[in-house]
Amino acid sequence: MDGELISVGTEILLGNITNTNAVFLSEMCARLGISLYYHTVVGDNEGRLKETLKQACGRSKVVIVTGGLGPTEDDLTKETAASVLGYKLVEDAHTKKRIESFFKSYVKNNKNKKITENNWKQALVPKGAKVLDNHNGTAPGLIMEHSGGIVILLPGPPGEMKPMFQESVYPYLHKMQPEIIYSQMVKICGIGESQVEDDIKDLIKKQKNPTIAPYAKIGEVHLRVTARAKDEKEARKMCKPIVRELKARFGKNIYAAEEEKTLEDAVVELLASQNLTLAAAESCTGGMLAARIVNVPGASKVLKEGFVTYSDRAKRKRLLVKKATLAKEGAVSSKTAKEMAKGGCFTSGADVCISITGIAGPDGGSKEKPVGTVFMGCCYKGDVYVKEFHFTGNREKIREYTTVNALIFLRDTILQNFKKK
Amino acid sequence: MDGELISVGTEILLGNITNTNAVFLSEMCARLGISLYYHTVVGDNEGRLKETLKQACGRSKVVIVTGGLGPTEDDLTKETAASVLGYKLVEDAHTKKRIESFFKSYVKNNKNKKITENNWKQALVPKGAKVLDNHNGTAPGLIMEHSGGIVILLPGPPGEMKPMFQESVYPYLHKMQPEIIYSQMVKICGIGESQVEDDIKDLIKKQKNPTIAPYAKIGEVHLRVTARAKDEKEARKMCKPIVRELKARFGKNIYAAEEEKTLEDAVVELLASQNLTLAAAESCTGGMLAARIVNVPGASKVLKEGFVTYSDRAKRKRLLVKKATLAKEGAVSSKTAKEMAKGGCFTSGADVCISITGIAGPDGGSKEKPVGTVFMGCCYKGDVYVKEFHFTGNREKIREYTTVNALIFLRDTILQNFKKK
Repeated sequence: MDGELISVGTEILLGNITNTNAVFLSEMCARLGISLYYHTVVGDNEGRLKETLKQACGRSKVVIVTGGLGPTEDDLTKETAASVLGYKLVEDAHTKKRIESFFKSYVKNNKNKKITENNWKQALVPKGAKVLDNHNGTAPGLIMEHSGGIVILLPGPPGEMKPMFQESVYPYLHKMQPEIIYSQMVKICGIGESQVEDDIKDLIKKQKNPTIAPYAKIGEVHLRVTARAKDEKEARKMCKPIVRELKARFGKNIYAAEEEKTLEDAVVELLASQNLTLAAAESCTGGMLAARIVNVPGASKVLKEGFVTYSDRAKRKRLLVKKATLAKEGAVSSKTAKEMAKGGCFTSGADVCISITGIAGPDGGSKEKPVGTVFMGCCYKGDVYVKEFHFTGNREKIREYTTVNALIFLRDTILQNFKKK
Repeated sequence: MDGELISVGTEILLGNITNTNAVFLSEMCARLGISLYYHTVVGDNEGRLKETLKQACGRSKVVIVTGGLGPTEDDLTKETAASVLGYKLVEDAHTKKRIESFFKSYVKNNKNKKITENNWKQALVPKGAKVLDNHNGTAPGLIMEHSGGIVILLPGPPGEMKPMFQESVYPYLHKMQPEIIYSQMVKICGIGESQVEDDIKDLIKKQKNPTIAPYAKIGEVHLRVTARAKDEKEARKMCKPIVRELKARFGKNIYAAEEEKTLEDAVVELLASQNLTLAAAESCTGGMLAARIVNVPGASKVLKEGFVTYSDRAKRKRLLVKKATLAKEGAVSSKTAKEMAKGGCFTSGADVCISITGIAGPDGGSKEKPVGTVFMGCCYKGDVYVKEFHFTGNREKIREYTTVNALIFLRDTILQNFKKK
């Protein structure tokens, strides 16, 4: 089944907002087995929207439109789609009631807000269209069938669109597919994207069903294995040997097989399962590593504390780094990283401490230690491991790569010591 | 002048990557006074790309295409555009030389990489096109004129596209405009988007030239004032009264009038100008505030250290929060925030310490203190100010809003004490 996306909104054309809806919907369509051939962004302009909709309906079976369902005069997606497809707008009693009750609780929480007359425009729906409830706003979603396929209208705000898609549109499109689509995620860390692609070249080459799609994230590669079959059981069965093969090839570099699990989730889970507590001692990342650990709800169980020791003085005072080490080796050195990790464990009482010291730039680099040089230490119950990295990019990129690699180093160290036992 | 964007790449249609190029180019075009009416994303498919290009050239004066200029067989943007516009491809000696020298240094740094034959494809250019040097990669940019306007081809990787646009395309398009476009930024913090829009409704309503465009960021609103005139001096003069009016209306809530300056830049600058040193004591944000401060190159001048005291024990040990306070008032309380800020100053020796303690969720909320409740303390040379916030959204959003508001609270406290002197 083929499809395309239309995003309506002058604010996107002005670069005012990033079109994250398109990313979400693209990934969802890929998962549903819908091949998207076009995305179009068009402003809140009736003529151009009409032209775009006509073209899309003429060439694609599924057309998903986001935005332009609001209450203002500018919002004309529903009106335009109804006119293009020959639908009449009528008031939907159920939607009117839903909007009423939404406003009741809204006004209660926002005393100085008033509901204006034009809001009732949102209770009008194309007669015969499938109406999708919006639990996070007023504009309903709409599915309109026509001779060539279907048009799905969804509200623009991601906080309204995403839950509506998952609740109503995903199951609807899933049912439309002649086959069941099932996919399984394999999340890999510690190997570069090109290396992963090289390692599975043979699998990719001969793939048909299931398929393997690689998604590169910073410091990670996610592989989605997708099978089509007549039922889920069959599709699962088809994915199994591929997932088994990926596990055999990437081994401990696979940190998760779940869609929602992040690298920090996996690390916190690993620490908790081993009854280990953690401290983080950061210089150039300035708290980014601790912040990622705290991303995980319930991180308090494992994180004893974090130190942002950007200055030499703080490194000495908080982490007991020796004056001589800083003077002789410098703040960015293997020895300083080692002492930071050891001192972090000692002073916090944590079982494990990961330390980071590096040069994120743009200044501070030298010939021996250019911008991007980072040393990390990981102290595990008294033993300290040290690693040296050389990252490229601007200050932001270097710090992001450093943070991900610290999580990976931490995970590796725990896994290694786990094996030793 | 009107225009449109075409992004070429199957990876965008699959939701594999976010189309950040479109955001950048949209904002640039807005700044140049080019009205974009469409963005289209199309895959690496000759037929569909041809159709899309033809349509775009037929309806828009400026067509900017990104992606599909790489060395592989999939990359066919240049070939397709040349065929649509009737250009012949010829080898460009200058580009070939540039690619050679690029590879020389590349191979030196990446010993196990080889240059394959297909890379020389990138030295072919449409005969008569303007060739734009790529200082960060191999594919050159190209400007092709045709009877209805121009087509600009740019490489897909943002690290290559953006510098090329700024260096070569921006000045080119700027010259094409019959008028000079000049814009001035006004960055506001501490006031909500709808409040700002309300406050300038009258200015927006009567605007023609200059225009005011609001851009909402998390916790901030940026207003871009843009004037068109026959020369820059005239345009600057036209912006002046509007900027003056905005300054009068938003006063100290304006933290910057420079395009590139971030809120953390402004805060670090303010601290440095007052010779103040800073400490950060964070609980629910877990290092996000310190990390934003360290975003600023040279933050070491002001940041003494950061404490991530997620546990009660760390709050007591590092920040000297009283056991009785934690027991009676709880870790998320006005009194704990106050003691954290005071203790942070004392133990670090910093002039100013900002503290954060809150409930980011999803668990941990209660009737009295629901998820989103955050207390912050700011200790300024012994005086402690405390603020209570109630944020909504998921864990991530609550922590982001908390971090921005901590920066704003910090800034406000310094400005207030500055006035007192």
